[in-house]
Amino acid sequence: MISKTYTKYIQSLHQKKFRDLENAFIAEGSKVVMDLLTSPKIVCERLLATQQWLIENEQQIRKDSHIPMEAIDAYELDKISALSTPNQVLGVFKKLKAGSIDPVGKVTLVLDSIQDPGNLGTIIRIADWFGVSAIICSDNCVDRYNPKVVQSTMGSLGRVELMYTHLADWLIKYPAIPIYVTALNGTGIESIKGLKEGIIVIGNESKGVSDEILDLANEKITIPKIGGAESLNAAVATGIILSHII
Amino acid sequence: MISKTYTKYIQSLHQKKFRDLENAFIAEGSKVVMDLLTSPKIVCERLLATQQWLIENEQQIRKDSHIPMEAIDAYELDKISALSTPNQVLGVFKKLKAGSIDPVGKVTLVLDSIQDPGNLGTIIRIADWFGVSAIICSDNCVDRYNPKVVQSTMGSLGRVELMYTHLADWLIKYPAIPIYVTALNGTGIESIKGLKEGIIVIGNESKGVSDEILDLANEKITIPKIGGAESLNAAVATGIILSHII
Repeated sequence: MISKTYTKYIQSLHQKKFRDLENAFIAEGSKVVMDLLTSPKIVCERLLATQQWLIENEQQIRKDSHIPMEAIDAYELDKISALSTPNQVLGVFKKLKAGSIDPVGKVTLVLDSIQDPGNLGTIIRIADWFGVSAIICSDNCVDRYNPKVVQSTMGSLGRVELMYTHLADWLIKYPAIPIYVTALNGTGIESIKGLKEGIIVIGNESKGVSDEILDLANEKITIPKIGGAESLNAAVATGIILSHII
Repeated sequence: MISKTYTKYIQSLHQKKFRDLENAFIAEGSKVVMDLLTSPKIVCERLLATQQWLIENEQQIRKDSHIPMEAIDAYELDKISALSTPNQVLGVFKKLKAGSIDPVGKVTLVLDSIQDPGNLGTIIRIADWFGVSAIICSDNCVDRYNPKVVQSTMGSLGRVELMYTHLADWLIKYPAIPIYVTALNGTGIESIKGLKEGIIVIGNESKGVSDEILDLANEKITIPKIGGAESLNAAVATGIILSHII
């Protein structure tokens, strides 16, 4: 049984302004929660789970932590969950300290106005798959701690660093690093292979990359199109680009 | 103003059993509806839209069709919409006639138990981008006329043919066509390039491709992994694979 105050506290974390205020966020589902628990950078404040889940997982977690865990009923989980179909476990975590990202000597992903939570989460998961450890987001990208983003990362959130900033101001700080921007009329992606250092800019789902950023590009890159679709989903485009250039 | 009966009819189309019974489906949003209207294969039964949308688009549609159009209020659209944020237009369309798909001389996509509507819709859009005109779905894949699938296709539904069937029975009919199955321990995708004829099997989001289908594979293929993520989203994997082999 969780208190009314704590229920309200968790519900408030569904919204960005309270996540910022409380410096905390929620994650749901066994896979996502277990992955975050193993991340050395992320601190868990509390775990709330069904009795069943605790029986199955408690031992494994207790081994190396002192996380407060509590068994709650399905109807309570339903109240605090941000999902339409609540999972068996919900964790309250402290947000990571915002650090700065240095793009020297590696491939860095830059996201311009990615506003769909599912897309951002999937992009974080893709970056993690391809070993891209840093993502720079424009200030108007969706919050990485949005419950739907956390859900779609499938646990990769603890392994990929994110920084929110004004993109143009950040990009001009690194004139020696090549900037590749996705556009409709660029070079085919197959021409860039084995990239060791570079910045890849992915644009908004419907509007693409803003002109301000396009002007800073060293090269425009394009996923060659054969059929009739007008565009590709931003996450799918990211996956295709990283799979070719890395 | 639409009648209570027609409102109920549209609402019933949110469910597969009524879509099958009525042989109809709904599509929402300007981009999706306009794309379906231009498809020579898909017949529109009725368009319901805000006055504003009709003023802006009626002329363009009238030119080459006699589709019944009706202006409705936002609250009516809200009632019939399957979206949490209804768009300005909803079209009722007749389902396509189920045909058979011949994989000879082309690249055919086969989906094993893809159950997430967003994934299926995105895969249809990806197929359309790469000029893959035919998709075979296992019987337990989500219905292609599910409103969320239709939404995620972004209009590609009219340009890609789909067939639902028992996969193993279908695959053994074409022993001469190579079957590539996505798996964790296969050949890197970069080794297959310029494929002109072949069947690519994509597995379920969490379970992968079933053993029955794996046994039929001529080659297992893998997207090389560098980082920590356990898996890739099925739609992202499809995009990456098609971008390499076509």
